[in-house]
Amino acid sequence: MTASDTITASGLDAAIADLKNLYGDRIQTGRSIREQHAHTTTPIPNQPPDAVVFPQTTEEVAETVRICARNAIPVIPFGTGTSLEGQVNAPNGGISLDFSRMNRVLSINSEDLDCVVEPGITREDLNHALRDQGLFFPVDPGANASIGGMAATRASGTNAVRYGTMKDNILGLTAVLADGRIVKTGTRARKTSAGYDITRLLIGAEGTLGIITGITLRLHGIPEKISAATCSFPDVHSACRSVTTAIQMGLPIARIELLNALQVQACNAYSKLDLPPTPLLLLEFHGTEASVAEQAETFGEVASEFGGSAFAWTSSTEERNRLWKARHDAYFSVLPLRPGARPIATDVCVPVSRLADCVTEAEREADKLGFPAPIVGHVGDGNFHFSLLVMPDDPAEYARARDFIGWLNDLAISMEGTCTGEHGIGQGKQPYLRRELGDTVDMMIAIKKALDPQNILNPGKIFSL
Amino acid sequence: MTASDTITASGLDAAIADLKNLYGDRIQTGRSIREQHAHTTTPIPNQPPDAVVFPQTTEEVAETVRICARNAIPVIPFGTGTSLEGQVNAPNGGISLDFSRMNRVLSINSEDLDCVVEPGITREDLNHALRDQGLFFPVDPGANASIGGMAATRASGTNAVRYGTMKDNILGLTAVLADGRIVKTGTRARKTSAGYDITRLLIGAEGTLGIITGITLRLHGIPEKISAATCSFPDVHSACRSVTTAIQMGLPIARIELLNALQVQACNAYSKLDLPPTPLLLLEFHGTEASVAEQAETFGEVASEFGGSAFAWTSSTEERNRLWKARHDAYFSVLPLRPGARPIATDVCVPVSRLADCVTEAEREADKLGFPAPIVGHVGDGNFHFSLLVMPDDPAEYARARDFIGWLNDLAISMEGTCTGEHGIGQGKQPYLRRELGDTVDMMIAIKKALDPQNILNPGKIFSL
Repeated sequence: MTASDTITASGLDAAIADLKNLYGDRIQTGRSIREQHAHTTTPIPNQPPDAVVFPQTTEEVAETVRICARNAIPVIPFGTGTSLEGQVNAPNGGISLDFSRMNRVLSINSEDLDCVVEPGITREDLNHALRDQGLFFPVDPGANASIGGMAATRASGTNAVRYGTMKDNILGLTAVLADGRIVKTGTRARKTSAGYDITRLLIGAEGTLGIITGITLRLHGIPEKISAATCSFPDVHSACRSVTTAIQMGLPIARIELLNALQVQACNAYSKLDLPPTPLLLLEFHGTEASVAEQAETFGEVASEFGGSAFAWTSSTEERNRLWKARHDAYFSVLPLRPGARPIATDVCVPVSRLADCVTEAEREADKLGFPAPIVGHVGDGNFHFSLLVMPDDPAEYARARDFIGWLNDLAISMEGTCTGEHGIGQGKQPYLRRELGDTVDMMIAIKKALDPQNILNPGKIFSL
Repeated sequence: MTASDTITASGLDAAIADLKNLYGDRIQTGRSIREQHAHTTTPIPNQPPDAVVFPQTTEEVAETVRICARNAIPVIPFGTGTSLEGQVNAPNGGISLDFSRMNRVLSINSEDLDCVVEPGITREDLNHALRDQGLFFPVDPGANASIGGMAATRASGTNAVRYGTMKDNILGLTAVLADGRIVKTGTRARKTSAGYDITRLLIGAEGTLGIITGITLRLHGIPEKISAATCSFPDVHSACRSVTTAIQMGLPIARIELLNALQVQACNAYSKLDLPPTPLLLLEFHGTEASVAEQAETFGEVASEFGGSAFAWTSSTEERNRLWKARHDAYFSVLPLRPGARPIATDVCVPVSRLADCVTEAEREADKLGFPAPIVGHVGDGNFHFSLLVMPDDPAEYARARDFIGWLNDLAISMEGTCTGEHGIGQGKQPYLRRELGDTVDMMIAIKKALDPQNILNPGKIFSL
């Protein structure tokens, strides 16, 4: 018996009655709020939950899961709703847990460079809380996502090349299991070999194995010096080759972002910049005054070998923030390229040695699509995204976009890469998971069935049982 | 039905007959070789397997597991036998898989800073193979262990403070499951969010969920410059405090090892050194010529604030190797402190802010033991080891050592640390796992039962089902 098969009106009514007792006015069932708590960021259909609750404590989450478990009702955790593959949808209905009221920093241990937070805090609010202590949390997926959602989807983003992804920056989790038990998966020790790595099993599990209610994060000292640089290239191949070379030299660059020519033009227009309208790398260097200068100089030499021009670096905070604001606004900047269109993001990641070929081949294929498809990429990791600007009312365009995504995912897999560098599987990427990992998926399913036999924890995500 | 309960003479005979067909003269059943393939490094009893096989391919491992699965016979992977908590023991008998003939480097992708190896290669042989390409694999647990064993026990060691542990330096695994299926858990992409992190689930699972037969490792460029430093302190508290301060400042020191006064004296005697007989930090800096000098200078200033003296740094390769050879020989150096004794290693790891207190309190308690107990520690991670020099024929000493280990593990757990920083759980640490992680252990057991329902993969390790 699984929630996907057997959710019943009587079970749902019983669960909602119990939840009303628990939550009072912190449970909502209006259509509009339910739709806001389902998928909204891409053309994946919006599948609303039956109710939205706003827990304030781990114990409330546990009681919610116990109520839902008794009635075989799905439970779907919700952070900020910025996921891109349908992770917050409720294909079988159920209860959305909105973590916006569990957004506290519980402790900052500056001596240990760690902190304990609730899952609803956003990364910007967290970094605001850390700034006074000279600390920051480096993972930056672009969107101002919640830390819980970032953990659940194993997010990464612009800083991952230097600081790693969520999996590298979490010491332990508090989580509620499918039977309502509360577990702590780690300690504040910086390393451990105490049994199975349940912390990293829950990171990226998209809420399907347990609901994250507390997170112990690794922090970093704000670097003494941060500088930014831009460098233009005649083509993406040259840009990628310069990145690959810098990575191979072990240059500890903090951020290396690629924008293709179309994306640069979009950013120029949207953010009132004046960058040359050719492929661009946007870099950030962290370190001491001396090491930042050394890194920038070395990268400048590498770039010029590959035809890079207009290399410009700055340690002005204002100028740097302006550039990175433009990068963070890339999502919005592409919208005017085709008014009315909705972007669909691809997310392949390949070994860096294959990056230049992968981007070049994909850009050529994208040229045939008949709609704009700008590129941004965390190219230090070999990860890049197209924004496919598809008209919402054109099924033929959707079909072409879907075919292109399939083609691109297969290309990445054939290059020993992955179909999803950082967006997760959710609903959207399920067809590709087995192509990439084969029978490893059966291990995942066996674990899911063992830990959530009723299939109530975010059912229909990663795989459909 | 589990292998632990039901291993039968007829099942064993049938399995060994089939294995003889498969392996020819690569199966051994002599008593001596069987004992060599069980636990030998500490006073945990030696529990030999019934036979030892020497597979040469992943497919042979898979066929071995299928034969053993048919007959409900345990399968115990064996690398170099250097684990410290009984990981290679065969408490219910079974077949030991000795990976010494699966020790090839299958590919080195210098452009991507990764390589693919078989599990039997030792870390020294691997680094020898990498050196020509200017690359190295940083994880260094001291012993010349096999990469497969290091993956299975989530090993770390001296370089972890800068380069991370095995979990941070593996991109993907090939593994044989309990039913003999072969899976690949990852790609060569540097990051992924493709479903559950099965790679990291198998790292540290001590062979209980799958048998690792191939490993894709992250590599690093050999730094342009490496320098070493030593610094003496009046007491371990001051030494630890200087480490904590350096970590908090974000100094990217590659190695930070603590030796307490007794350990320094042992190293002086064994390795013919002339270090002041007081607590010592041994450090290594990696980087460019300029950054190495900057790091050393900054650390020297920090150390002097905490009473550090005789700070000496060298970029002479010969001098550096001599110091690190002494550190690696620490295990042997303590033996002359009490001829005839056998060392038992502890392995707690605490948040760095608690390190000075933890080491100081533990050293005081150890003074009451009545036998020598020198300390070495990877203190940049908050991890340190006593060598408890116990006489093999003195049950009262063993009892005191056991009580001390229990006391120390509880102390570390009370300081939000772990009972096992890098040695794993195996047989020896099982009583402490639940104290540290509570019901999280039930999640582990549920996963174990789901993936290995017959309990044939290294049974009796991590937990006894």
